[in-house]
Formats: sequence, structure tokens, C-alpha cells
Amino acid sequence: MVFFLYFQSKEEFFYHITTIMKIALAQLNYIIGDFKGNAEKIIHTIHEARENRADLVVFSELAVCGYPPLDLLEHRSFIEKCQGSVRAITKETKDIAVIIGAPTLNTNSLGKNLFNSALFIHNGQIVKIIHKALLPTYDIFDEYRYFQPSQSFTVVNHLGTRLAITICEDLWFQLPLLTHFGRHKLYTVNPMEELMGLGCDLVINIAASPFAYNHDQIKSEVLTKHARRHKIPIFYVNQTGAHTEIIFDGGSRVVNAKGDVVARLASFREDLAFFESENLASSKSIEPEMDSEERRVTSIHDALVLGIHDYFEKMNFKTAIIGLSGGIDSAVTLVLAIKALGAENIRVLLMPSQYSSDHSVTDAVALAENLGVRYDTVPIKNIFNDFLRELAPIYKGTTPGLAEENIQARIRGTLLMAVSNKFGNLLLNTSNKSEVAVGYGTLYGDMSGSISILGDVYKTDVYKLAGYINRDREIIPQNIIIKPPSAELRPDQKDSDSLPDYEILDKILYHFIELRQSIKEIIDEGINEEIVNKTIKLVNLSEYKRFQTPPILRVSSKAFGAGRRMPLVARY
Amino acid sequence: MVFFLYFQSKEEFFYHITTIMKIALAQLNYIIGDFKGNAEKIIHTIHEARENRADLVVFSELAVCGYPPLDLLEHRSFIEKCQGSVRAITKETKDIAVIIGAPTLNTNSLGKNLFNSALFIHNGQIVKIIHKALLPTYDIFDEYRYFQPSQSFTVVNHLGTRLAITICEDLWFQLPLLTHFGRHKLYTVNPMEELMGLGCDLVINIAASPFAYNHDQIKSEVLTKHARRHKIPIFYVNQTGAHTEIIFDGGSRVVNAKGDVVARLASFREDLAFFESENLASSKSIEPEMDSEERRVTSIHDALVLGIHDYFEKMNFKTAIIGLSGGIDSAVTLVLAIKALGAENIRVLLMPSQYSSDHSVTDAVALAENLGVRYDTVPIKNIFNDFLRELAPIYKGTTPGLAEENIQARIRGTLLMAVSNKFGNLLLNTSNKSEVAVGYGTLYGDMSGSISILGDVYKTDVYKLAGYINRDREIIPQNIIIKPPSAELRPDQKDSDSLPDYEILDKILYHFIELRQSIKEIIDEGINEEIVNKTIKLVNLSEYKRFQTPPILRVSSKAFGAGRRMPLVARY
Repeated sequence: MVFFLYFQSKEEFFYHITTIMKIALAQLNYIIGDFKGNAEKIIHTIHEARENRADLVVFSELAVCGYPPLDLLEHRSFIEKCQGSVRAITKETKDIAVIIGAPTLNTNSLGKNLFNSALFIHNGQIVKIIHKALLPTYDIFDEYRYFQPSQSFTVVNHLGTRLAITICEDLWFQLPLLTHFGRHKLYTVNPMEELMGLGCDLVINIAASPFAYNHDQIKSEVLTKHARRHKIPIFYVNQTGAHTEIIFDGGSRVVNAKGDVVARLASFREDLAFFESENLASSKSIEPEMDSEERRVTSIHDALVLGIHDYFEKMNFKTAIIGLSGGIDSAVTLVLAIKALGAENIRVLLMPSQYSSDHSVTDAVALAENLGVRYDTVPIKNIFNDFLRELAPIYKGTTPGLAEENIQARIRGTLLMAVSNKFGNLLLNTSNKSEVAVGYGTLYGDMSGSISILGDVYKTDVYKLAGYINRDREIIPQNIIIKPPSAELRPDQKDSDSLPDYEILDKILYHFIELRQSIKEIIDEGINEEIVNKTIKLVNLSEYKRFQTPPILRVSSKAFGAGRRMPLVARY
Repeated sequence: MVFFLYFQSKEEFFYHITTIMKIALAQLNYIIGDFKGNAEKIIHTIHEARENRADLVVFSELAVCGYPPLDLLEHRSFIEKCQGSVRAITKETKDIAVIIGAPTLNTNSLGKNLFNSALFIHNGQIVKIIHKALLPTYDIFDEYRYFQPSQSFTVVNHLGTRLAITICEDLWFQLPLLTHFGRHKLYTVNPMEELMGLGCDLVINIAASPFAYNHDQIKSEVLTKHARRHKIPIFYVNQTGAHTEIIFDGGSRVVNAKGDVVARLASFREDLAFFESENLASSKSIEPEMDSEERRVTSIHDALVLGIHDYFEKMNFKTAIIGLSGGIDSAVTLVLAIKALGAENIRVLLMPSQYSSDHSVTDAVALAENLGVRYDTVPIKNIFNDFLRELAPIYKGTTPGLAEENIQARIRGTLLMAVSNKFGNLLLNTSNKSEVAVGYGTLYGDMSGSISILGDVYKTDVYKLAGYINRDREIIPQNIIIKPPSAELRPDQKDSDSLPDYEILDKILYHFIELRQSIKEIIDEGINEEIVNKTIKLVNLSEYKRFQTPPILRVSSKAFGAGRRMPLVARY
């Protein structure tokens, strides 16, 4: 854990906060449902905060159970365990106040069973329970599925300071971006206006705000806007760590009453930092200087490494297996996996077919040797021929085509799973978002895996990741980067035989998937009408394949998976 | 389309409805996003209703786009197409009123983009738009993801009759069953109380209420309760047809002011029926006499047949393939598929291994011949041996086990997909709910398929379906029904080697999955503690497999899939 001690000389009078308070922000990595582990970690951090003379330590949203707990919230026994954790934590609050997120029971006879709450605990007592008012129910969020939105607001007084305690979305009454219907406000109540009307000195926001490569700056803008409008400092505490496909980047931060971001906690790892409330006004803005595109690629890289790491650690697995084709997707996946798990925990399979080019094998071998991972080669030709022999009576009179290509992909999938099942290495899926979008892949073949690493990364961004990986020295052999992409399932096959150039394809996909534009609007972007129509049709026709893909590490604002729910049977 | 004309002599004075109105209930089967097809069907029905001198024709919830449209609602172009359909329908309302469901834009600057609305259209004008107040957001429902709940209520006057127009969940303010937290009311507004306070003569409820085997009776009870309390008749119009995993059973009905269900439309198919409002009070209750268990099994059977039929028809596919093992699951799946698609559209593969018993092949052949479907036999032994040969350097020194069993299952999956891809037969998955629950199956092997037929049917209910199928004559050979279940992936394997008896297993699963009971509560049901613990652990450990299974036809109140969202990475 890193200690970020923030001290600066007092230069101007800061009129909002009258008493000096030392606040600890605890940005931790929880495991959903691991009540014992989460509580131990929380209690340990409370002790650490007290040793550092903090008056208040703030944990993130639903910290006691981990976020998002999904339908575990429907089990009464799960809520009872949350209550048990809260009791244990409450006992540890002598001489220090704690703000922590937990689900609580709705004791009113009307409305949903639960609230998504922030508990203010002090000296062994739960002093106040604040309920979340704005419940995100879009993209990956399902909060209205479980929680009743609060409609009343209250301020907590601690050591003479009036705290407005808010939970994540409560600050997002006004969306920074328009919805696809040109609207700004998804809710009818504005918690910040309600709270500020009660008179407050500082705002606490406990969050579980997932990473998306374009989201970090938007978060700062929202915090800044509130702080400026109400001339009030905001302490924002996020969780870090990945839960299956959802990656939390931490990046907790402090914004002073002028709206400057004056402190940030680490990204993609745990952090604990202390702040003296009196020092905020004079602090200087610390917002990053990195070029935004460089920052985007770096953050995707770091997010994916954390996503892999936490998937394995939280599932109690150590080792992975990857099918190495000699192409760029499996190469980038391998490098990311090594960073997350260590080269000694990865093995790869090379599975050349009769259509594999020589270079695909030599490139894959060079990469594996560069990186020091164990590799085995299992040619698929004999097994493929055996399949064809057994199928001959049924296939008689047909022309070889897609079916034969898919058999090869499925032999590879079966070989990878055969090693996975035998030795306990989880299979990493290497499909990229462009392929997943248009269904350019074989179900139960190359679309297999326990988790998809690049399924939310367009092919053009996979190249950028490779460039970032190679920024200091050639880790991925240049030949893998420059050769034209190919599935190598028939002689001289190239991706470009079936698909438009990835530059064009990815642009269409981004406008359709992320921006939800219509076909007409995309054509108006200057892209050939026929290509647009064909691409969108492929996307819609591939819903059935995506239904059965592994969970996909989410790095964009609209990933395939739980955040994008399309009817499978539909005509549109 | 069936005409259900309801006439009976007038026996008592019915004071609520002062003018006689002829109401048509249109229970149709829509395709999500098929605006042209849906509008044509709706307009055709309006014409038919007018020819039959109806004053009002009522269609179901979100009829213009089909229900549930899911995230298609986030596309502005999708909403524009809904508006186009509404305009076309509006033009056809000369001398007849229409009530129909459609999404409409929220023109207020606050709240979600859309409303889930009922449009009252008459003589070429949209006379009134009523918005849904209670938005189900649990199980398979995600309405708050898209829609703003209405908080105002209004009554529509048509031909002197005051209509309270409600949309599905609006009648479900008070749940007929307690939530798992012992609570009755998920909402804070009660639309029926609000509307009745305004003075009404009859209630219209347009719905998209999915089938679950225990739900039909509950629906009648809810309707009856409202009708009795407010002494008012209710016309309830549901859609029919399946959309991927969700099956709508129709069963639209009319309840008179005494609370008697006096008319029902067909189950599991389209229907159009006419009612004269004055005749309701005197009508007799027509609720079914069939034994409830017999009704349950029959309705599951009919639902699955419709589910298969509509999946194929709406996806524009005609033919299916099934792997026939000689076991009961694939036998029942085959019979259901034949009923849905015709024997001439089904082919089956027999894929014996060296561990297959003689009877499993002869039983499967007998079944295929009984039913007149094409079958081919592809032994997997040679391919399996080839896999083992190629894997020998990697497998050296290991003991044969689960990995070898899974290879066989995946060879079968690959063979089935090879025929599917070559000839365009969609693969039907044959896993039952008990297996899916405890992960007793091989991903990319027997867990493959375009849609799962029995994934929401416990093994004990699969036997009941077989009994129902054989009720008149032996369609499924008796030997398939009486032999002990086995995966036949190693010598003399039986399901009971790894799993408790299905009677006990299914009881545990039902209490955990459907009833959301805790381990302690299930043990208190009198089941062995060790078996309960082991079973629940298996369920939780198998989330990763279920994540990648095909869509499962939903027949229970809690099916795996969109209605049960569990974190994959969790410790609980």
C-alpha cells in the first residue's frame, strides 16, 4: 500500500471548512462475496488510518460485499453476511469515523427490498445511514434491479464539519454527454442541489466506477463542475481491481473548492492516502500532461493486465494457456498475460495446419522464445484428415468450404482445452473486438476460452497495444506486426478477402456500437454505403455467436457482454 | 386465427357499463424489430375487427416492435421506426378505436429517454397516450433500463364508457407471492388505486407476460382480486410466441366484475376474440379443471414446442440436428423438435465411443426409426485415438481422467457442428437443468448448440415429459426411460457415480435456485447436510460454464440465463 501524504503551506483562507480534519481515502480491491477477506482488509486499513491520526477513513461503494454483487443480493443469507461484516467493522471504530458502502434492508413496506447505502460509523455506533438516490440502470449497471432509490437527503456533522455523503451516480444527475436521444438528465431528483440546500462543508463520494478508456477525464470534469458551482471540495473514493469483465481503475481523487483536482490516488492498484482538509484550497491542479492518445493506449494496457491478474487470483487459478498462431492478437494476449501472471505460469500451443505459412510457425516460436514461455507444437493435419474420413459418407458430393475451416478451428479449441483440462491452465481467448463484432471466428473453436482479453479492443487498437509493448525494444517480432492478418484456414487466406480494411471496419463499428448511430449517419461520415450495410448486417447476424463467448474484459464505454443486451432473435 | 365469440343471455343488471361496447382482443405473435411484418399483421387484424363490428380492438404491450426489444431501444432509428408503424396504424382506425403498445419519447427534460406506452387511437387520431407506471426490473425484465415510470394517471372515455388503460405490471403493485425478504410491494405507487379513484367502467391491461409453469394461475388470481375489490371487469391481452429464450403463452382473458374468469383466449398460439361488454356479469367462470400437475407438464411441453418453432421461424431456419445418445434427454429433445419442425426437417447423429453400451446405439436407432428421422452413425473412436496420439508427448506420465472424457464430448460437438455448418441444420442442445446447474457437462462439447431445449427442465421433469409424450403409445422406447442415466465417457460410468439421486438433487436445486433458500434452510427441509453443501458448491463453481451456454428456453420462474445474473468471479 502506498502512502500519499499531502502537505502544502497554507496560502489563502479556506472558508468552507472551519475545523481541520484529517481524511484517509481507502482505495481497495475487494472480492465479491468474500466477507471474511474484505472485512479483514477493511479493518486493517481502519487501524492503519487511526495510527496515522486520521479523523475519518472513507471506503468505496458496497465495499463489504464487493461490487457488483448482482443477484447474490437476492439471497437473504448474503445480506445477513453483509450485516455481519458491518457489525465487525463497527467494533473497530473507536476514535475514528468510517464511511463505508453496504447494502441495507428497506424497512419501509413499499419499494425494493434493499438500499445501496453509505454507513457513517463512529465509536462503535452506526451514526447515520445514507441511501443512494440515483441508481444507474444502463450499460453494465442494474442497480434498480435490487435497490430502492432514496428521495430524502441529510447531512452528517463530524467534528464540526458538515459532510454531504453521496454514492457514485448521485453526482451524475446531469450527464456530461448527451444520451442518444439528445437528452442530459436521466433522473428526476438532483441530490447535489438537495444536499447543498442543507448547508455543507465538503462532499464525500463513495464510488464503484468502472474503467473505460474515455471515462477518467469525464470523471474529473463532473467533480470539477460540482466543486466550482457549489464552492466546495469533493473527496471521491473508487474501488480498484477487476471482477470478471469489469475493471475498476481506482483513480480516487480530491477536488478543491475551486474545482482543481489537487490529488489523485494510484490507478489500477490499491492505495491509501491522507489529506488535511485545510490544505486543499491552496493546492495546485495535478491533472496529467500525457498526450491523450498515449494515455488511452497505456490505460487500456494497464487495465487488461489487471483484468487478467484479478480473474486468475480471484478464481484461485495460477496458470494460463494460449494458442499462438503467429498473428498479432495471440502475440499481444501472450505479452499481457505474462505481465499479469509471469512467464513461468504460461504455456502456449502452436497448432499449424496444412494451410499455415512457414512464417506463422517461425514467428510464433520466436515470440515464445523471446518471452521464455513453454511451447508445444501439435500439428492438426492428422486429426483433421481423420474427421474428414469419418465425415466422408455424410459430406459426399459437397464442396469444401466454411464447414471444413471450422473443423480445423474446433480441433485447435479441443487441443487447447485438452491441455487446459489436464494441467489446470485456464485458456485465454484471443479474439479482438472487430472479429467478435462481425462474427469472424468459430464458436467452440477460436472463440473458446475462460476469459477474452481483446474482445473489447478493435484490431486497429491491438496494433497500437503492440506498438506500446514494443516501445523500448522489440518484444513482439516485427514480422508479426507487419504481415497481413489471416486465419490461415484455407490456402492463401487473408482477412481482407472477407472483411473491409480494419481502418474502415473499426470506424463503422465504433460509430454503430459505441455511438449507436444509424446506418444513414454512418454513411454520412463518408463511408461507402455498401460496406456500411454489409458490416452492420454482419454485426446483427452475429448476436448468436456473441451470446456464447467468454466474458470480455471491458475497456470501452460499450463492450460486448452484459453492457450490450441485444435480442438474439430479431429482424433489424 | 380462431374466433371466439362470446354470447350469453343477459340474466342480471350489470351497473358498471352503461353503453354496450364490442371489444376485440388481439393476441398476436410479433417478431422483434420486424416493423413491416408486425404492422401488416396489426392492420390486418384491425380490418378484421372492424368487419366484425368491434368498437375497440386491443393489442398487447410494445406490439409495434415486439417484446422485449432490449438495447435496440437505445437506437434512435429503432424508435423512429416504431413511430412510423404507429403512423401507419393510426391511418387504419376509421370508425374503430385501437389500443396498442409502443415506446414513446419522453418530452420532459428529466428522466429516461422513453416511456412504455399504450396508445389510444381513434378515427385517424392518437387520442391519448398512457404511460406504464410500474416497470418490472427483476428476473428477465429490464424495463427501468429504458423507460421512465409514469406518475400521473388518466381515464379514457370511449362511447360513454370510461376505460382505465393499464400496462402489464401496473396491476402488480401488490405481489401475489412474498419476495425473498418477506415483502409484498416493490413499488411506491399503486396505479389501480389511482385510476379507480378517477371513476372507471372497465379496465384494459395490455401485457407482455412470459410463460412460467406456475404463473398462469397467479395471473388469474391477480386479475380476480382487482376485479372483486373494485367491482369492475378486466380485459387482459397478452402476446404469444417465443423470442429466443422467452416464451409468451398468450392466455389473454376476461374477468367480470364479480372476479370470475369468464373467457380465455388460446394458449401458445394467436387468437382473436370478441366480447360484448354487457354480457360479462352473467357469464360463468371457465377456469380449467385439469389436475394441476398434469397441467404443469402439458404446459411445459407446449411451451417448449413453441419455443423451438419460433426460434427457427424467426431466425429463418428450417432444419435442426441433434446428437442422439440413447439417453432420455436427447430422446425428449428429438420428439419436441419433431413436433415443432416436422420429422423431415430433423437429422440426428449417433456418435458411439468405445465406452458406449450396445443398448445406447440400438435404443437410439429404434427411436430414430420410430420417429422417421434421418440418422447417421459416426463412431468417435478413431478421432479420439488420433487426439491421444498427437497429445501423447504432452500427456506423457499422466493418468487418464476428466480431460480424456472431455475430448470425446468435444469430438461429438465438433462432428455435430460439422454437419450443422455444412448443411445449415441448427444444433439443438440437449442438456437438462440439473446438469447445467451442477456443471455436469462439457463446454464446447455436449453443452454446445444454438438453443437449449431442456436447460430449464430438471431431470425429474424430463422423465415426466417423456411420460406425457408416451401417454397414448410408446414413442420413446421404454428402455431409454428405465435405464440409469450415464454420460458413457468411461467404462461403466453412471451419473450416480458423481451426483446424488436426481430426486434429491432436483429438490436441492429447486430450493436454492427457484426459492433462493440458504444452505441452512435447505438442510432444514430434511436433506443430508453434506449433499446440500456439495451441490450448492457445484452450482456456484459452474457459473463460468453457464456463462457460455446457448440461450435456454425458459419455462420456470427462475431459469439460467438473463433472468439469473450471478457474478462469475466471486467467493460465496
